Amino acid sequence: MRHRLLVAALAFAVAAPAIAQDAAAPPKRKSAKEIIDAAPASAWRDLDPANTLYMELPAGRVVIELAPGFAPEHVANIKAMARGGFWDGLTIYRSQDNFVVQWGDADGDDKAKAKPFPAGTRDHLPAEFTRNDKGVRFDRLPDADGWAPEVGFIDGFPAARDPKAGKAWIAHCYGVVGAGRNNAPDSSIGAELYAIIGQAPRALDHQLSVVGRVVKGMELLSVVPRGPDPMGFYEKPEQRAPIVSIKLASDVPVAERTPLQLLRTDSQAFRDATEARRNRVDDFYTVPAGHIDLCNVALPVRTPPKG
Amino acid sequence: MRHRLLVAALAFAVAAPAIAQDAAAPPKRKSAKEIIDAAPASAWRDLDPANTLYMELPAGRVVIELAPGFAPEHVANIKAMARGGFWDGLTIYRSQDNFVVQWGDADGDDKAKAKPFPAGTRDHLPAEFTRNDKGVRFDRLPDADGWAPEVGFIDGFPAARDPKAGKAWIAHCYGVVGAGRNNAPDSSIGAELYAIIGQAPRALDHQLSVVGRVVKGMELLSVVPRGPDPMGFYEKPEQRAPIVSIKLASDVPVAERTPLQLLRTDSQAFRDATEARRNRVDDFYTVPAGHIDLCNVALPVRTPPKG
Repeated sequence: MRHRLLVAALAFAVAAPAIAQDAAAPPKRKSAKEIIDAAPASAWRDLDPANTLYMELPAGRVVIELAPGFAPEHVANIKAMARGGFWDGLTIYRSQDNFVVQWGDADGDDKAKAKPFPAGTRDHLPAEFTRNDKGVRFDRLPDADGWAPEVGFIDGFPAARDPKAGKAWIAHCYGVVGAGRNNAPDSSIGAELYAIIGQAPRALDHQLSVVGRVVKGMELLSVVPRGPDPMGFYEKPEQRAPIVSIKLASDVPVAERTPLQLLRTDSQAFRDATEARRNRVDDFYTVPAGHIDLCNVALPVRTPPKG
Repeated sequence: MRHRLLVAALAFAVAAPAIAQDAAAPPKRKSAKEIIDAAPASAWRDLDPANTLYMELPAGRVVIELAPGFAPEHVANIKAMARGGFWDGLTIYRSQDNFVVQWGDADGDDKAKAKPFPAGTRDHLPAEFTRNDKGVRFDRLPDADGWAPEVGFIDGFPAARDPKAGKAWIAHCYGVVGAGRNNAPDSSIGAELYAIIGQAPRALDHQLSVVGRVVKGMELLSVVPRGPDPMGFYEKPEQRAPIVSIKLASDVPVAERTPLQLLRTDSQAFRDATEARRNRVDDFYTVPAGHIDLCNVALPVRTPPKG
């Protein structure tokens, strides 16, 4: 029975009202899983192949949803680089525990060795740290956040918003992908990318151009052997993790694509499932947390049902 | 130059007053690294071999500081099991992405195959989810937390406190180690342990008996190949990651120990380094966050200086 650690916690969760404090006999409600399994087709959105990257690693495929609504110029440049096969044969050259894995051209600093950018790649872009929040749908969480005035979801991405400044940005949650830069805010072009593999380093928020989020295959990126302290850059080229290719899903034959659907963050099922996790009370959990952090909110992904 | 992503962010941090919002020309202050490097000997504490576990994996040693102040009965039982070699030859049988790795006896559920507990192991313990906070030093963070009334550090562990309830507990931050249990609160004895490898699942706080924290070697645990969804338990025995042994440091010859010191959370250097991270403004970061989450606070570890 010892194996059941956290099984109950994950599989048999039930929701209780946010105000419920009597854990003795919580009202039996649907678990997050039950809510998601029962969600209507209208609660799911199809991942758009035109805004999806397939990062092919020897171990398998990592699927990244791009965020043109937040970083349109970086996303356009990334598409040009993917079409030109820029990352094919390059590597993950950095893996820093509880922080990021980073990939691109390990020799990018060396003009003699640097891989040329494909045709159509722009070598300079404006910083795209935030977006104007005017008229942008924001599926706000009621939960307090220490890093931003408001947190929630925009275009299905974990996001934060500052109504006074009229700005919104993607939060650096687990799996979020951003564009590496130098000190100059406008020094990133999307060639060097990183993905968050640990506790959300929210101090990075609105200080880098975030380009998307891994929606499938994080378990392949998160186990890349760590490089040495303090930064996780490998000392020897042979230690780097090879990238077979990075392609835009729409450039891959339909038969070779990975069809996916994500639960819409503006759906009742998403709100209910999040509440079921915020105030989980079941045979395992006896005290509802009454809170959930933005980066703890699950963003359900599924293979589209047949028919 | 593309390699410099986040280098500045990590190496050249400077602190600014919490109220500082003028990022144009922040006052040059010491970086967290500079503050830590300059900390006096009195700011460091020696890891106590009598409360330290060495988890030996084929890839190297994971060092775990035990928390007898929070879970005295579990820690005592874990010491008895380590002395008896309980985990030697057992495995990490679960690795769930962005959640936990879990180890112990994969056959523990099978009475016919279960490894017998060593002499001195108690087969039942009380739940040790929280401790009485009376007279317990609490190095409180000024930062707001959505999960608990107060957060800070107790005995050097990331902790939360509820003054009204008079209780404190270790928070489930990255690297924290807890005792797996079944649904019954008092069903853990410390034989099955888990370590947090992703975004802090704080909803677990004060619902399990936390026994310590990994202070060195997390990068060996965090890359253990993930098991299948939804729980990360491996399907085949050969997929499990072998544990060479888990010993109490004080039972290991002095010459074979890993001497470590941790920065005291009640030291000025720790407070200053945390502030340097809370309001980092430097050549890379242009806007101070004005906040830091409990689980983002670095807990510096070093090899004791010679002499």
